[in-house]
Amino acid sequence: MHSVAEALRAALPPHTVATDAETLERLSHDDAEWAEFGLPAAVVFASRIDDVVATVRIAAAHGVAIVPRGAGTGLSGGANATSGCLVLSLERMTRIVEVDAAERYAVVEAGVLNDDLRRHVAAHGLWYPPDPASQAISTIGGNVATNAGGICCVKYGVTRDYVIGMTVVLADGSIAKLGRTTAKGVTGYDLTGLFVGSEGTLGIIVDVTVKLRPLGGREERAVVGYFRTLTDAGRAVAAVSEAGIVPSALELIDRTCLHAVAQWQGWDLPEDANALLLAKVDEPGARGEELAAAIEAHFRTEGGDRVERAVEPADIDRLFAARRLAYPALERLGPVLTEDVCVPRGAVPEMLARIEAAAADAGVVIANIAHAGDGNLHPLIIAPEGDDDAKSRAKAAFDRIVDDCRALGGTVTGEHGVGLLKLGGAAAELSPVVRGLHRSIKHALDPAGMLNPGKAFPNGD
Amino acid sequence: MHSVAEALRAALPPHTVATDAETLERLSHDDAEWAEFGLPAAVVFASRIDDVVATVRIAAAHGVAIVPRGAGTGLSGGANATSGCLVLSLERMTRIVEVDAAERYAVVEAGVLNDDLRRHVAAHGLWYPPDPASQAISTIGGNVATNAGGICCVKYGVTRDYVIGMTVVLADGSIAKLGRTTAKGVTGYDLTGLFVGSEGTLGIIVDVTVKLRPLGGREERAVVGYFRTLTDAGRAVAAVSEAGIVPSALELIDRTCLHAVAQWQGWDLPEDANALLLAKVDEPGARGEELAAAIEAHFRTEGGDRVERAVEPADIDRLFAARRLAYPALERLGPVLTEDVCVPRGAVPEMLARIEAAAADAGVVIANIAHAGDGNLHPLIIAPEGDDDAKSRAKAAFDRIVDDCRALGGTVTGEHGVGLLKLGGAAAELSPVVRGLHRSIKHALDPAGMLNPGKAFPNGD
Repeated sequence: MHSVAEALRAALPPHTVATDAETLERLSHDDAEWAEFGLPAAVVFASRIDDVVATVRIAAAHGVAIVPRGAGTGLSGGANATSGCLVLSLERMTRIVEVDAAERYAVVEAGVLNDDLRRHVAAHGLWYPPDPASQAISTIGGNVATNAGGICCVKYGVTRDYVIGMTVVLADGSIAKLGRTTAKGVTGYDLTGLFVGSEGTLGIIVDVTVKLRPLGGREERAVVGYFRTLTDAGRAVAAVSEAGIVPSALELIDRTCLHAVAQWQGWDLPEDANALLLAKVDEPGARGEELAAAIEAHFRTEGGDRVERAVEPADIDRLFAARRLAYPALERLGPVLTEDVCVPRGAVPEMLARIEAAAADAGVVIANIAHAGDGNLHPLIIAPEGDDDAKSRAKAAFDRIVDDCRALGGTVTGEHGVGLLKLGGAAAELSPVVRGLHRSIKHALDPAGMLNPGKAFPNGD
Repeated sequence: MHSVAEALRAALPPHTVATDAETLERLSHDDAEWAEFGLPAAVVFASRIDDVVATVRIAAAHGVAIVPRGAGTGLSGGANATSGCLVLSLERMTRIVEVDAAERYAVVEAGVLNDDLRRHVAAHGLWYPPDPASQAISTIGGNVATNAGGICCVKYGVTRDYVIGMTVVLADGSIAKLGRTTAKGVTGYDLTGLFVGSEGTLGIIVDVTVKLRPLGGREERAVVGYFRTLTDAGRAVAAVSEAGIVPSALELIDRTCLHAVAQWQGWDLPEDANALLLAKVDEPGARGEELAAAIEAHFRTEGGDRVERAVEPADIDRLFAARRLAYPALERLGPVLTEDVCVPRGAVPEMLARIEAAAADAGVVIANIAHAGDGNLHPLIIAPEGDDDAKSRAKAAFDRIVDDCRALGGTVTGEHGVGLLKLGGAAAELSPVVRGLHRSIKHALDPAGMLNPGKAFPNGD
């Protein structure tokens, strides 16, 4: 019998199958620090749906697992290779198939970058809201497979809220066209929704139909302020929410993160700056002005320091610089393991206090960026390169954070997905009955278990 | 062996199981005209989740099908009994379990009426948007099982967009708690989304967690106008959309409907009034004023007659009276079969022309209410009571409308569900592969096929 790589080469166009060591290594994992991965037997760079179908059929015939991937920017290990698998890259499927400006939808192949979709539809006066931090480099296929979130989802929702259809190659190589292009539709089960966030375990998403919003009619205003305590910042977030204001961004940066940025950039922080809140509203005109003023007032009432407002894009960028620079500032200190937990909004200060305690007990640096308006925290855990002891203490802190988020009524992943890193947390969060439902559905759609095995949900009892 | 009714009586609290002829008949069908139904063996009125679990177990042991239902206001036959089945009514499960104003969610049992949920959360300063026409009498459980739409979903989305968790009793009597209460969360598959719109075929939904919006910050303004042709009205809808305006309602009423209302109410219609457009915006203050003025201008430019604007609630009610009175006006003419198809927004005039042709050819009256902003049409087909020939011609018109909607790129049900009436349309719309996916998932979750058999999707190859 031929090897699976030979069979693929015989069936697929030239330059589609790679088996060189560099490519195998480069596409063996995503951006999740510390998640395990093996070396694939081959990498397939699909350019067309036919390539995907052929790959799935050949993999099935050879009993080889398939690990699909977009740009590999995931942070949970969802695209990590298992040993001897086929990695199926959708990066070359970059066609924007259709933009219908009147009906406000677009059909795009899985490998289209989030920012490329945005730019393309903007030319038609349309807007695709979901804005994961990776938007410049991550693919729509990956965004959909992980149900990616972002900063504006506090007001505009997550990827799932925009996906109304898709084409999927199933485990037997058949092609399923799911969903619709109309504004509404309830014909049959919501299979489109089931595939969103399924991390490549139920089928290979080859194109996606997304609904779009009008681009115009928005006008951004930013409000930022420093706070002396996390509790003060938490009260400010609660006050904005209780006032019925739905901001288009409401981010929090903690002390550790602030100091890392300030030290790097030579900034002068206010004394006792323990948190920075960054808000945006996007209602145009007088209404936007009124909402921004109200947020400013709430920030001040709850003890905000150096509270500033901006409406000019350059000024907004300046006020949001700390948010943009947070991650690179921390990466200077060592490999960053990005956590992702979601708690009730009101529990954000308590969760941050618990994270601080976990960091102190473990003797590791943990900085925090949070989508405070959603209760979605990203503790950034840092262990200096090569310090195995610190790494193992960091892992313990990671587990403790996951436990703490559940103790506060939260969920173990807000927007990054289960992948490999959250399998333990998901096993604790999902009841045996619900895990059984996952197994039943997985088995129904992928009886041989060949699609991204071991990801997305805990497969044990 | 005891009958299933005897076994249920032995296991359940008093006054829970009914077998009297009147109750069996009354709960044997929903509000879908002409959909088939049989007589159930018994009706169970569950008050607690334990009642549901016991009913499912006893039904399974006796090999008897369960047809769950809320208030029975469905329009597709989704709650119609099969002969000898158990009808499981959730109407008595009316507890509002929790409202969390700070986190903006509510947990309610399946039998809570849509309007009761609205009223209850309004007291907490919160708003549950989905507003099916049946909102005063339909249950949240039914709304979720059918993924109900409504008038405001052109701006605010459908039921599915608000359901973040639920408790479901599965076919084996086990209890699955799905979803979360946090703003975001991607732990495992989106099983909550899979159950939304599954019409009771995958499990019995006993409670639902819905996210809510702030009640305040909205201010309604209405704009209405008559149009001489459907094409003019269609151009007005397109002009509003192309201007990037997302109205909170955009309804169309056709000539037949208008004349039925006018005749009943003694109204004087403009000459050549072939369509009425009714729009709302809900942005507060100057912005709302600006948008309403823009809609008014678009209506006038496209030939609108008697274009009026209103901001006082009583005036808005008056302008929207034709929408409110349309259905009762038509019911005076005979039993009304409510169609539900969804086409691209831009195809609404063409679809209405085709419906008019279908009515003329069949010699039946078909009036139209449409959620024009969504492309979701509700042709109301009327055949005089007792006229079997007219009824059969009406059915032919129904099938032709379904075919036409698909020919225009539409979907056979926009918001009412497949139930029984749209099984044929769904079979034509869903490919064999997609129908196979439905069967696989149904079999995985309900291997004996005891939950609402024969509904929601075409079960053949």
